[in-house]
Amino acid sequence: MTSAPAAPAASDWLAAHRERLDGALAAIHSRGYYSAFPESPSPRVYGETAAADGQAAFEAHRGTTYDLSTPGAGNTVSSERSPFGIPLDVQYPHVTEDGLDELLAAAGAGLTGWRQAGVDGRVGVGLEILDRLHKRVFELAYAVQHTSGQAFVMAFQAGGAHALDRALEAIAYAHEEMSRYPATAEWTKPAKGDPIRLEKNFTVVGRGVALVIGCNTFPTWNSWPGLFASLVTGNAVVVKPHPLAVLPLAITVSVCREVLAEAGYDPNLVTLACEHPGDGLAKPLATRPEIKLIDFTGGNEFGEWLEQNAKQATVFTEKAGVNAVVIDSTDSFKALTGNLAFTLSLYSGQMCTTTQNLFIPADGIETDEGHKSFDEVAAGLAKAIDRLLGDDARAVELLGGIVNEGVINRLELAPEYGDVVLASRAIEHPAFPDAVVRTPLLVALDGKDEDTFSRECFGPVSFLIRTSGTAESIELFGKTVAEGGAMTAGVYSTDEAVLADMREAALDVGVALSENLTGQVFVNQSAAFSDFHGTGANPAANATYTDGAYVAGRFRVIQSRRHVG
Amino acid sequence: MTSAPAAPAASDWLAAHRERLDGALAAIHSRGYYSAFPESPSPRVYGETAAADGQAAFEAHRGTTYDLSTPGAGNTVSSERSPFGIPLDVQYPHVTEDGLDELLAAAGAGLTGWRQAGVDGRVGVGLEILDRLHKRVFELAYAVQHTSGQAFVMAFQAGGAHALDRALEAIAYAHEEMSRYPATAEWTKPAKGDPIRLEKNFTVVGRGVALVIGCNTFPTWNSWPGLFASLVTGNAVVVKPHPLAVLPLAITVSVCREVLAEAGYDPNLVTLACEHPGDGLAKPLATRPEIKLIDFTGGNEFGEWLEQNAKQATVFTEKAGVNAVVIDSTDSFKALTGNLAFTLSLYSGQMCTTTQNLFIPADGIETDEGHKSFDEVAAGLAKAIDRLLGDDARAVELLGGIVNEGVINRLELAPEYGDVVLASRAIEHPAFPDAVVRTPLLVALDGKDEDTFSRECFGPVSFLIRTSGTAESIELFGKTVAEGGAMTAGVYSTDEAVLADMREAALDVGVALSENLTGQVFVNQSAAFSDFHGTGANPAANATYTDGAYVAGRFRVIQSRRHVG
Repeated sequence: MTSAPAAPAASDWLAAHRERLDGALAAIHSRGYYSAFPESPSPRVYGETAAADGQAAFEAHRGTTYDLSTPGAGNTVSSERSPFGIPLDVQYPHVTEDGLDELLAAAGAGLTGWRQAGVDGRVGVGLEILDRLHKRVFELAYAVQHTSGQAFVMAFQAGGAHALDRALEAIAYAHEEMSRYPATAEWTKPAKGDPIRLEKNFTVVGRGVALVIGCNTFPTWNSWPGLFASLVTGNAVVVKPHPLAVLPLAITVSVCREVLAEAGYDPNLVTLACEHPGDGLAKPLATRPEIKLIDFTGGNEFGEWLEQNAKQATVFTEKAGVNAVVIDSTDSFKALTGNLAFTLSLYSGQMCTTTQNLFIPADGIETDEGHKSFDEVAAGLAKAIDRLLGDDARAVELLGGIVNEGVINRLELAPEYGDVVLASRAIEHPAFPDAVVRTPLLVALDGKDEDTFSRECFGPVSFLIRTSGTAESIELFGKTVAEGGAMTAGVYSTDEAVLADMREAALDVGVALSENLTGQVFVNQSAAFSDFHGTGANPAANATYTDGAYVAGRFRVIQSRRHVG
Repeated sequence: MTSAPAAPAASDWLAAHRERLDGALAAIHSRGYYSAFPESPSPRVYGETAAADGQAAFEAHRGTTYDLSTPGAGNTVSSERSPFGIPLDVQYPHVTEDGLDELLAAAGAGLTGWRQAGVDGRVGVGLEILDRLHKRVFELAYAVQHTSGQAFVMAFQAGGAHALDRALEAIAYAHEEMSRYPATAEWTKPAKGDPIRLEKNFTVVGRGVALVIGCNTFPTWNSWPGLFASLVTGNAVVVKPHPLAVLPLAITVSVCREVLAEAGYDPNLVTLACEHPGDGLAKPLATRPEIKLIDFTGGNEFGEWLEQNAKQATVFTEKAGVNAVVIDSTDSFKALTGNLAFTLSLYSGQMCTTTQNLFIPADGIETDEGHKSFDEVAAGLAKAIDRLLGDDARAVELLGGIVNEGVINRLELAPEYGDVVLASRAIEHPAFPDAVVRTPLLVALDGKDEDTFSRECFGPVSFLIRTSGTAESIELFGKTVAEGGAMTAGVYSTDEAVLADMREAALDVGVALSENLTGQVFVNQSAAFSDFHGTGANPAANATYTDGAYVAGRFRVIQSRRHVG
């Protein structure tokens, strides 16, 4: 048996995945439709045994110690529980503050070799990792399902195929960004007599060690863009998963380490740092001098803490906000309510993009079914949700499970905020008797109840807010988003002037706007390569997935120069 | 007289300056030689009367109140004094903390209109401003000379032509960065039945109000990249000049306002905020919530304060460091000493890029003139400086004046640090009897004197440091730069292995390296479009002039989307 040298393997990987990368590079410029990883879990796409094989691979993890070593880790830790009620009991390496010296020394040890891999070498490794993650997409989907509570198809799409697309998008941006600078240049300046000639070299150098802090609801989709953006730009990456959503990232890290080692690079360039819930590992980790980049998804409080305190690092945060839809008028009331019903129901509203506030004139709106009073609009939406979720077996495949107790607690308090338009109900999951499943709650408020609707109430709770008219709706939308941030915004109107006003208001407060969505596109969904996720222009996030600003600061260009003859 | 509508004027400007922009765009990709603004102040280039006209324009400012209004300003303030000893006595609008509400409200008032100008409209305005500044380049050069202390030709080049090139480079990067995103896109997703089609709009939106904090030594060169990068990406810019170097930026701001107003935009998009020395205006200004971007050039202490405290803003700092050259061997001792003599003498070493530390083996080096002991190397360098500065009338045109008293104070203390190899001497300026002119001081130290050479000693002071050999030289270079930062580094060696080691060491600590410079290129000079100034990868600066990372975070892209038929 002969072993191939490291560099050729990695450069072959770039060639092997070149078409996929080129497709992604074209897409980030056109921002048209592109997907490299099929979103349908159908056997016709993935093969007859793929789903069963993936499920078996997932099941095989349960009750075991995950085969992964983390420098500086002590014993193991097990902290996950499936929102569908089944035990997971997977043990992972446990990192405490005492182990950080060893962990970070090991993480940084491979940086010089990784720098020497060059842009194409690192991007090849990144693309190969994605390819191998794709081969395990069903296993990942089950892991996402049983940590986030997403129903299986959503876990497959958002946690698998779409997450791979977002990761590829980040790699494409990073590749393009690093490729803006030539590796060598000749500089010839006219002068009296002979011109002055210099030869110059430009080397992409990572910032150091990056930290990715995962979240409970989207352990892959929200972590992969930062992970791959940091890795291919020459950084080492420490992944700190949410204690309740480790498995998807353990699989991720193990694939990263496998590919790195195969290519001859230090596998400790990617490590998994697990903690007990409540250990508070993220703070000491995030403020270590070695950590130069941080990607965080999660609550506002800790996101803002990182922005304020991890001053040695460039911090990318995706926090939360008060997503809003302004309802002014419509030419299809049924499609409007159907579309919003889906948005509010999907994953029980536990998306950072789910609409919380629906601003509706107290006098009602004009529709294709004639004038509808505020109460009729509210009832129409409630009816659409009831219709969508009427069949329990179907409903659970849309709702999934409630991710953690915090959501239940908020849901239980929310009816007191105003008039309940639609009560939340518990559903028994036919396949998982211990699953915690809830339908959306709709509460009617007045415009003056700003204290309530200007704060995020994460989970299946939405507010229908009576306003004095669309002008006030837009004003309240602008005010709440400017102060509380938003990941998404929507408007329904048949009036071009209202749409124009809403577009300007959305530009003013820096939030992406969906107009009159009445079909199979939803305000809470963004498509990789085309839609930006978050904007970095309002308090809900200080960055977007994915653009130039998301990747440009993850590396520096270091030059050398000398005379040539 | 008819007045043309605003938008066409701005878009005409882009067309008028298109060739210049295209040249810059090509250059930032090739990083070959490019210059849009001739660096020679010769009458053959600029016309017979240009110098005299510019001087007259400069002289006309002296003793007057500058015709510029700043919202929120109270009385006027005059704080400059020429390092060449002539009175300036120009009065500028005085902004105090009490005026910041009014200033920042006015600065922000034009943001929506500026956003609506679009990428090409804003870039056209930026290019037109540069063109008009170029028409006043002699006036600017005299203003830079008599605030910074640079000799006239240097002030013309570094403060005029090269500063314009750097500004153009920043505009080119910003234009390219904003142009990565289409203004509109069509997204067509295959689906059962008809494909799903969305039309999307993408709008570049600035971050808000930007702050540019100027420095004493390079009021234009160091301020313009940030100013133009922020302006053309859709931000308003408040310029706070160093109290001793206001005039070049007052001219700059007045040209910006003139062009903005002519194009129909709010001139308050660019404002000048002057203070009395010691007012401490920068702190309250930099921490205002309206300020979203800060560009700072100056000392480490305040630069770090900004990085730590202006948390609401993205902060770009260029501070200072301990620039170093490692001398291992040479095939032209005369050219080596001549090249370094120029570097140490230019502007009396008052550049953030001037070499402070020269690491030389205690046993000496091999040269084309045979072995040279440490003392012979030191004497050779001293002799080259003496030769270069032997004629006072010529010397002052290289040295310029000492910018402020802090430099004199450091220079007077420095002989005590070690053995004086070459004493600094005062030179009488033939044209300006009150000018303060000093030649470089060379002090020999040992490797163990790290406390002395690891700190910056800004001004005409350089240390020749005895090491146990080149290995220790490279080690000390790496250590001091990793801890104290550096804007520049150099190496002289005939040994490819030493050059390779030094390149790796420079990559490790993130500093640009100049190898064996023996001609008309100097370690302290960087060429726009080709050389990066600073790296952002060591403590001397957290950003570079100019790359993608320098511009990408200055704006966000906000989208809207809707179904199409």
